[in-house]
Amino acid sequence: MSIFTKRDIKTINEAFLHELSDIYSAEKQLTVALPKMRKATASSALAEGFEVHLQETFGQLERLDQVAKICGFELKDVKCKAMQGLVKEGDEIIAEIEFGAVRDAMLIAAAQKVEHYEIASYGTLVEMAKKLGYPDAAIMLAVTLDEEKSTDEKLNELALTEVNDAAMGVSPVAASFVTEGSTSQHIVN
Amino acid sequence: MSIFTKRDIKTINEAFLHELSDIYSAEKQLTVALPKMRKATASSALAEGFEVHLQETFGQLERLDQVAKICGFELKDVKCKAMQGLVKEGDEIIAEIEFGAVRDAMLIAAAQKVEHYEIASYGTLVEMAKKLGYPDAAIMLAVTLDEEKSTDEKLNELALTEVNDAAMGVSPVAASFVTEGSTSQHIVN
Repeated sequence: MSIFTKRDIKTINEAFLHELSDIYSAEKQLTVALPKMRKATASSALAEGFEVHLQETFGQLERLDQVAKICGFELKDVKCKAMQGLVKEGDEIIAEIEFGAVRDAMLIAAAQKVEHYEIASYGTLVEMAKKLGYPDAAIMLAVTLDEEKSTDEKLNELALTEVNDAAMGVSPVAASFVTEGSTSQHIVN
Repeated sequence: MSIFTKRDIKTINEAFLHELSDIYSAEKQLTVALPKMRKATASSALAEGFEVHLQETFGQLERLDQVAKICGFELKDVKCKAMQGLVKEGDEIIAEIEFGAVRDAMLIAAAQKVEHYEIASYGTLVEMAKKLGYPDAAIMLAVTLDEEKSTDEKLNELALTEVNDAAMGVSPVAASFVTEGSTSQHIVN
């Protein structure tokens, strides 16, 4: 978000256009970040996950172009600052932490923050599209929302299984013992 | 995330400390941002929501101090760049959009992005605490995680009711008609 002319958002329709442009910028930034994350991981499962999500992201960008077309919008040239910060976190993890399981655990954490940013953003966009009377756009945005939620769940599974176990330097059996020994039964994400 | 000495994260324990320090920075930044957001909204319900979450955030910071104590950590002086970007978005909304319902809708969207950042972060922290054998810390972090999820749900309710309806310039009845007319039945957030 940024670089929008002062006071140029006066209606929900203009706010919707701005939010669409913002997430478009975020997805574009991700298409640069994900290949770097894929190369930086020691886990083949995680590398595959990043590659799958990269391909999905290209599809999501196309979907955003179609949504803009349906709504008669021309997307604005904005730069999503929140995603800049999130991508910067990923870059720092790669620069500062050695190749291996600990870096992978941190990459998963960073990627889940990205997914949650997108879940919040598409959640808003779906509701705005519905309220503004763009039902076809709402359906397309909801498809992307489901993809982002699914990616977050997959990352969660990876965090809970092989990568974190490797980072702990313990076998999966020992790691599950630690988890079961916890008095917290909280289900996360 | 940032300013950590090169290669100083070699174990999951160190990664956990770093993530704790990162979210501590994020929460501190929020204690500055939330009062500004509260003053900037035209909705008394939203203003109250921001105030309640501000008080919760002070409690969450205390809880993080306690978690650090339990684990024998001294939190690091890091600056969460992702939260910097998220807060900057909120500042821009206030600076660029006139006081009123459209600004409020955008403030809710920005606040939900913040909540999702925190949900992702605490989700990771709870699992790390469990795996590292800090069950009491995991329970405390899970309490905060639940608070963040609850805040996100409350923001969602506000977005779906009064604020967005006001921004649409329609009565709640007309707005719900638009929603029901949508062919998407997707449940968000």
